[in-house]
Amino acid sequence: MRTEIGKKEWAIAEGYIPKYGTGKEPEFTSHETACILNANEQEAQVEIFIYFSDRDPIGPYKVTVPAKRTRHVRFNDLNDPEEIPRGTDYASIIRSDVPIVVQHTRLDSRQAENALLTTMAFPGNQ
Amino acid sequence: MRTEIGKKEWAIAEGYIPKYGTGKEPEFTSHETACILNANEQEAQVEIFIYFSDRDPIGPYKVTVPAKRTRHVRFNDLNDPEEIPRGTDYASIIRSDVPIVVQHTRLDSRQAENALLTTMAFPGNQ
Amino acid sequence: MRTEIGKKEWAIAEGYIPKYGTGKEPEFTSHETACILNANEQEAQVEIFIYFSDRDPIGPYKVTVPAKRTRHVRFNDLNDPEEIPRGTDYASIIRSDVPIVVQHTRLDSRQAENALLTTMAFPGNQ
Amino acid sequence: MRTEIGKKEWAIAEGYIPKYGTGKEPEFTSHETACILNANEQEAQVEIFIYFSDRDPIGPYKVTVPAKRTRHVRFNDLNDPEEIPRGTDYASIIRSDVPIVVQHTRLDSRQAENALLTTMAFPGNQ
Repeated sequence: MRTEIGKKEWAIAEGYIPKYGTGKEPEFTSHETACILNANEQEAQVEIFIYFSDRDPIGPYKVTVPAKRTRHVRFNDLNDPEEIPRGTDYASIIRSDVPIVVQHTRLDSRQAENALLTTMAFPGNQ
Repeated sequence: MRTEIGKKEWAIAEGYIPKYGTGKEPEFTSHETACILNANEQEAQVEIFIYFSDRDPIGPYKVTVPAKRTRHVRFNDLNDPEEIPRGTDYASIIRSDVPIVVQHTRLDSRQAENALLTTMAFPGNQ
Repeated sequence: MRTEIGKKEWAIAEGYIPKYGTGKEPEFTSHETACILNANEQEAQVEIFIYFSDRDPIGPYKVTVPAKRTRHVRFNDLNDPEEIPRGTDYASIIRSDVPIVVQHTRLDSRQAENALLTTMAFPGNQ
Repeated sequence: MRTEIGKKEWAIAEGYIPKYGTGKEPEFTSHETACILNANEQEAQVEIFIYFSDRDPIGPYKVTVPAKRTRHVRFNDLNDPEEIPRGTDYASIIRSDVPIVVQHTRLDSRQAENALLTTMAFPGNQ
């Protein structure tokens, strides 16, 4: 089967979810997002691992992206095996069994869904 | 013929056009843009495919970029085969018959055409 | 001589300098910048070419970056062979005789020198 | 030992720390950050070198990132061998003895820790 554009491993070195209470929910929440594109004709089994400055990594968080679909995963919503702590620096590694494309975006919904920052994640070799 | 800088395939995993009605048009529209540079001495035939979270991809949207020209394509303006739905997460793949460079930018025109985010799209192998 | 990190050719597909008159000068000018790092032990001779949507490219704009120095080139300041038109979409290609690193940044000086967007430029093969 | 995702050398061509006095400290400080992810099972010995437009580079600033940890290094906090001058354009090169991932982010803490810009740093060959 032809594989589509992307890589099987990606890293995002920056991550930060503000603590609750800095504004009205949900309008003032800052959404940390990993936008995943699976252009393949088969489903992607994706695993996300979260790295911290002062404790062992947690994960995998398991995410499925259907064939020829995109899924914009909000780190705020991840809760299995556990919720990502607020007010804490983190980084993430994202692995998939088929090539995907991963883009890191932080959305600030306070002003009509404006996005404030984005970058392609860093791709691994495969 | 010498080929110029770029790749023939690019992906942008993040895309979102706010729904109409969140501000005065056109001043308050958020413009989602794929900036394309064709540095070659021949015209580029470009095709854009839009991927969603819950339906099959649509496209190709056909765009021509003349030789030695740039074209800043607004996703808001694409309407053939159909307009891109508002208020919906999407991703895009951009293919060209000659190497091009693609940069993803969201412009917020509410404050003197300020741009709020940008990243190079992710390049394929060719 | 050992060559340092970087590439000899870079592209930035997005560029836009607002027209004069949208705010007080120079405090309200939006600065479009190509940040160049030359980590080599020899001077870099850099040439910038500007591409448009509706006319032939202009350039080269010649810039020298001394050995082991950075230079943050404002497109607003380029004026030889001619000033870059305001209110016009453009793109740029940056070539050097030694490897350099190029990062595209737009600075908005209206609020304490905040920068609003940045991305690494797209590197060529060499 | 298996090496994890990343490269041993990275460059960030853009850097700027505003002068003190443009706002209330620390709420109005703009934080220039290099987010480093070390996914390896061994500690990373990291060295940061700062390049300027008009003087020789300074460094190395030595930073340790433990195994399987992330560290978000604020350039504002670096002070050995010397503090990075404020109000001055700079660039940086980051070297590690094991592969790491480096992302450049500027945080503006004036509004609930919003980040204003980010990009992956430019990776070297190794």
